[in-house]
Amino acid sequence: MELSGPIVLSDNRYGKAENRIVRVYRDSSRHEIRDVNVSTVLRGDFAEAYTAGDQSKVLPTDTQKQTAYAYAKLAGPQPIEDYALALGRHLVDKTGPVDSARIEVEEYAWQRVSVAGTPHDHTWTRLGPEVRTATVTVAGRGAEQRAWVIGGVKDLVILKSTGSEFVDFLVDEFTILEPTSDRMLATSLVAQWRFAAAEGIDWDAAYAGIRQRLVEVFATQHSKALQQTLFEMGKAALEAYPFLAEVRLAAPNKHHFDFDLGRFGIENAGEVYHADDRPYGLIHATVARADAPDPGPAWAA
Amino acid sequence: MELSGPIVLSDNRYGKAENRIVRVYRDSSRHEIRDVNVSTVLRGDFAEAYTAGDQSKVLPTDTQKQTAYAYAKLAGPQPIEDYALALGRHLVDKTGPVDSARIEVEEYAWQRVSVAGTPHDHTWTRLGPEVRTATVTVAGRGAEQRAWVIGGVKDLVILKSTGSEFVDFLVDEFTILEPTSDRMLATSLVAQWRFAAAEGIDWDAAYAGIRQRLVEVFATQHSKALQQTLFEMGKAALEAYPFLAEVRLAAPNKHHFDFDLGRFGIENAGEVYHADDRPYGLIHATVARADAPDPGPAWAA
Amino acid sequence: MELSGPIVLSDNRYGKAENRIVRVYRDSSRHEIRDVNVSTVLRGDFAEAYTAGDQSKVLPTDTQKQTAYAYAKLAGPQPIEDYALALGRHLVDKTGPVDSARIEVEEYAWQRVSVAGTPHDHTWTRLGPEVRTATVTVAGRGAEQRAWVIGGVKDLVILKSTGSEFVDFLVDEFTILEPTSDRMLATSLVAQWRFAAAEGIDWDAAYAGIRQRLVEVFATQHSKALQQTLFEMGKAALEAYPFLAEVRLAAPNKHHFDFDLGRFGIENAGEVYHADDRPYGLIHATVARADAPDPGPAWAA
Amino acid sequence: MELSGPIVLSDNRYGKAENRIVRVYRDSSRHEIRDVNVSTVLRGDFAEAYTAGDQSKVLPTDTQKQTAYAYAKLAGPQPIEDYALALGRHLVDKTGPVDSARIEVEEYAWQRVSVAGTPHDHTWTRLGPEVRTATVTVAGRGAEQRAWVIGGVKDLVILKSTGSEFVDFLVDEFTILEPTSDRMLATSLVAQWRFAAAEGIDWDAAYAGIRQRLVEVFATQHSKALQQTLFEMGKAALEAYPFLAEVRLAAPNKHHFDFDLGRFGIENAGEVYHADDRPYGLIHATVARADAPDPGPAWAA
Repeated sequence: MELSGPIVLSDNRYGKAENRIVRVYRDSSRHEIRDVNVSTVLRGDFAEAYTAGDQSKVLPTDTQKQTAYAYAKLAGPQPIEDYALALGRHLVDKTGPVDSARIEVEEYAWQRVSVAGTPHDHTWTRLGPEVRTATVTVAGRGAEQRAWVIGGVKDLVILKSTGSEFVDFLVDEFTILEPTSDRMLATSLVAQWRFAAAEGIDWDAAYAGIRQRLVEVFATQHSKALQQTLFEMGKAALEAYPFLAEVRLAAPNKHHFDFDLGRFGIENAGEVYHADDRPYGLIHATVARADAPDPGPAWAA
Repeated sequence: MELSGPIVLSDNRYGKAENRIVRVYRDSSRHEIRDVNVSTVLRGDFAEAYTAGDQSKVLPTDTQKQTAYAYAKLAGPQPIEDYALALGRHLVDKTGPVDSARIEVEEYAWQRVSVAGTPHDHTWTRLGPEVRTATVTVAGRGAEQRAWVIGGVKDLVILKSTGSEFVDFLVDEFTILEPTSDRMLATSLVAQWRFAAAEGIDWDAAYAGIRQRLVEVFATQHSKALQQTLFEMGKAALEAYPFLAEVRLAAPNKHHFDFDLGRFGIENAGEVYHADDRPYGLIHATVARADAPDPGPAWAA
Repeated sequence: MELSGPIVLSDNRYGKAENRIVRVYRDSSRHEIRDVNVSTVLRGDFAEAYTAGDQSKVLPTDTQKQTAYAYAKLAGPQPIEDYALALGRHLVDKTGPVDSARIEVEEYAWQRVSVAGTPHDHTWTRLGPEVRTATVTVAGRGAEQRAWVIGGVKDLVILKSTGSEFVDFLVDEFTILEPTSDRMLATSLVAQWRFAAAEGIDWDAAYAGIRQRLVEVFATQHSKALQQTLFEMGKAALEAYPFLAEVRLAAPNKHHFDFDLGRFGIENAGEVYHADDRPYGLIHATVARADAPDPGPAWAA
Repeated sequence: MELSGPIVLSDNRYGKAENRIVRVYRDSSRHEIRDVNVSTVLRGDFAEAYTAGDQSKVLPTDTQKQTAYAYAKLAGPQPIEDYALALGRHLVDKTGPVDSARIEVEEYAWQRVSVAGTPHDHTWTRLGPEVRTATVTVAGRGAEQRAWVIGGVKDLVILKSTGSEFVDFLVDEFTILEPTSDRMLATSLVAQWRFAAAEGIDWDAAYAGIRQRLVEVFATQHSKALQQTLFEMGKAALEAYPFLAEVRLAAPNKHHFDFDLGRFGIENAGEVYHADDRPYGLIHATVARADAPDPGPAWAA
C-alpha cells in the first residue's frame, strides 16, 4: 500500500519534565517539607515551530521550569492537586498560544525523625517506595475554562502470603501451569483515580482514604485471580467516594515461586519462595461509575 | 459532584510482560543470534474474571509465556515484525475468548566479534544503547482478521555539536533564558512508525532505512528548535517510504550547558559542557500522511 | 617499564549473587515475612579451575543457590546475621576446598497492613527505601574457625532543613563557592558497623538501636560539615554499643540548591530548593575504637 | 566482648563524584567529542574537619568540580589517563593538606554519523553499553611524587553460543546441577589493568589492544568454566603488553537457560534460551606478573 497524500503535523505537545522541587515551610521552628517531581506539558498553536522553525509562539521549556519553581512558593506545592491546578491555570491564562496545560506531579513522602521519642522539628527520613501522583489538565480561558484532576499512587508494593488461588482457567496446547488453591500474591500497584470535579475536595483526605480502601480490599478479599482483586479494589474506592468517576489500575503479578526443597528432604509448606524478576503477568482494569462525566483530555498523555 | 450510577468494568486487558528470549540459529558453524524482550497483551471476553473471579475464559499468562518461547522456534524471532504477527495470530486464532492480541518486542543488537580481522562464528558483543522495537496488533478471526504493525527505535542517543539555535521565542515574566545562535543539541530519541500494511514489506530493510533517514536529517538539518528537527525527521522518513502512514517522535532535550570558565580566565568557546540530568525539555511530534488509513487499535496501549 | 616475570593467578573468589529469597513463617494464622537478597562468595583452593579448567574442587554456584534457599528454612533467615553465620559455617564445614565463605544479605522491610485499625494477619506493604545489610565471613574449620559480622544500613535517605553550615573552608584559584551559615543537608547514608564478636548479641536490637543513634545525631548535631556529622554519628554508635569495633560511613552530599526567585520579585528565604542529581560530594569516614580487634578478612570484598 | 578504648577517626576521604563533562574539539569544521564522568577523591590532613568541624584545610568539593571542568579545557580529557594524571597532579601540587588524589574517569563512546556514506563533521550517536575507565592515583609532591594508572573497561557484554562446557565439578547434598558439554556463555565484563608505569605509554592504543585481546580469547578459548576463560583473558593481555603489572576481572555469569520445548513436541537443540536476571554466578580473578611492582594505593577505593 503506497501513500501519496501531503505530509502533515498531526499532533504535538511539549514541556519541561522532572523539575525536582523541594519546598520547606518554616513559619515556625517546626518545619514542614514537601518533595515533588513536576512535569509540564503544553498543547496549543505551536505548529509553526515544527513546520517552519518559528519560535514566536513557543514559551521556552526553561520558562516553564522557572514558573514551576515560582509556583512552589506562590501556590504550594501542598496539596499537589491544588498546586498543579494553580500552575496549569497560570500557563493557560497567561500564555496566548496555549490551549491546554497538563501538569504531572509525583510526591515523595518523608517521615519526621523521632529523637528520644519526640518528633524532630526539621529532620526527616524518606519513606517509600510508594509515590503519590497527580495529573491535572486545564483547558480554555475565562468562563470556558475547564479542569480535570486525576490522583494516584504508584510503586505501592503489596503482598499477601495466603488468601489467593488460581484454578479452573482456560487450557490449550501450551498450558503447563498447575492450578493452585493457595499461592502468594504480590504486585507493585499503579492506581489512578479521576475525580468528577476539580474543586470542593479535600485532596489529602481523599488520597489517604482511597489508598486505605485499595489496601484493605487487597488484604481481605479472597483472590480468585489478580483480575478479580483489582476490580474489587477499584469498586471499593468508587463506593466509598462518590466524587470519583473512575479508577484505573495496572498491576504486575510479581511472581513468587515455591522453591523445591523436597528433593533435599526438607519440607516447604509455603515457607520458602523465589521472588522472580521477569517475565511477569501484567493486568489492567478500569472500573467506573456508569454516570461518570466524559473524561475529555484527562487521560491524554 | 456526587455520582450514584452502577459501578462497571469499563476496560481491561492482561498479558505476560518481558519474556527475555534469546534465539540462536545454528544451521551451520556460523551461528546467528537474535535477542528479544517480548510482551503479550490480550483483549477479549474476560469480564467475568474481574467481576466474578471466573477464570474459565482466561488463558494463563504462563501459557502466553510458553507460547512466546515456542514461537521463537516456530516463527522467528527474525525479523521481529513477522514473529510478532505469527504469535499474535496464533493467540487470536486459537483462543476463543480473545478479540485481539498485542505483541510488543524489543530487540537488542549484537555485533560479531572480530578475531585477527575475521568475524567470529559464534561470539558477539552487545551493541547499544539503541533498541529496535515492534508493536503488532492482530484483531478478529478468519476473513475479518486485520493486523497493524508499528516499527520503531528507542534510546537512540544522538548529539550535534553545532548547527542548532534557539532564538525569537515567546517571552513572559518568568523568562530568563538567553537566545543562542549556536548550541549543542542532544536527545535520546524514541521513534515509532506505523506501516500502512502488515505484509509485503522487507522489515529489516525498512528499519535500517528509516533509522538512517532520521539520523541523517538530525545531522544535516540546521535546527531552529528541536521541534523543527523532529518534524523534518519524520517528514523525511515518510517521503522515503510510501508504505509508512505516520511517524511519532518523542525526544527529551538533553541539555548540555556551557560551563563558565571565564571567571577563571579560561576561554570556553563551546568546548566544555556540563551534561545535565534533570529537568529536561520533552518534545512530542506526530507526522503523518494525510491519506493514512485509520490507525484502529494500533496505538492502544 | 617492561615486565617479564611469570604470569600467575594472584587472587580469586567466586559465588552466587542475588538470590532473592522470601520466607514466610506460618506457624499460626498470623504470618511473618522476611524478604532478603543473599550473595555467597567462596575463597579457597580453586586455582586449578582457573589455570587448568579443572572443576573437581569447584562447588557449583547453583549448589550455593540451592543451599541458600535450603538454609532459609533450616536457619532463618531471621535475623539475617544468624542466617548468614549458619550458611557460611555450612559452606566452610562441608566443602573441603573452601577456606572461607562470605555471605552478604540485604533485607527489605515490610509493614503489616492495617485494616479498620487492626494489623492484618498476612498482608504487608513494602517499606523503603532503606535496606538492612549484613556481611558475614567465616574462615577455618573446627577449633580454628573464626567468624566476623558486619551489620549495616544503606539507602537511608535523611534530610535536615536547617542546622547545617559550611564556612571558613580552604580557598584557591578555582574556588567560587560562597560560605553559608544555613543550608539544607541531605544524604543517602550507607553505614556498616563491625561487631567485636560473632555471638552473644541481640542482632535485631542492635540494628534498631544503632540506626536510631545515627539518625538522632544527624538530627540534633549542628553540622559544620557533612564530615563532622558523619564522625559524630559513628562516635555515638560506638559509645552506645561497646560490642562495636568500628563504623564505616559513606555519604553522598545530595545537594539542594536555593532556587533564585528574587529575579521575579519573589522572596525565597530557604523555602524553594532544586534537588540536584549530579555531581555530588561524597564523604567517607571510618570511626573506630582504638582497642578494636583486628578486622582480618571482614572487609575484604 | 566489650571495648573501652578511645574512639578515633581511623580513615577518611572525600571528593566530588560524577562530574558529567562533555568536551568538544572544534579546531576545524570537523569536530571531535569526548564524553566523560569524572570523580575526584582526596586523602590528607582532614581529620579536624571530622573531629572538630574545622574546614580550614578542606578544599570544597565544589572547587574540585570547577577544577575538573577547567582541566577538561586545560588538559584534555583526551586521553582520559593523561587528563586524570594532570588533574590529580594539580590537586596534590596546589593544595597543601592533600596527600593524595584519586581521579576516576568513565568515558562514553560516540560514533560519527554517516550521511550518504560520508562521516559527518559534527554529529554522533552513542555507542555502548561498554564504558572505558581510568583510575589514577597521585601521591606526594616534588621529587617524591608518584602516580599509578589503572585502565579498564566495564559493561562489556559478551556472549558465545557454543564452545563452553561445565563438567566434573564438586558434588554435595545440595547439588542438582547437571553437567553440560555445550552451553551458552555470557557475561558483562568488568576488567581493570594496572600499568607498571605512569608515562611513556600510548593509552589509546593500549586500551584498544587490551580490549581486543580480552575479546579474542573469550571467543577462541574453549571454556571449561568462566574461571578458566577469565584467567586466559588476563594472561593474554599481560603477555601482549609487558607494561602491564596485573589484570583484575569480575564477571557475572549471565545465565541463559535452555527453554523446555520438548513437552510441546518441539525440538530445541540449543536454539531457544531464557535469559535469566537473578541470581547469577559472579567470578573474580586477578592475574599478575610475578615481578609486578607494588600496587601501593592504586587499588584503594
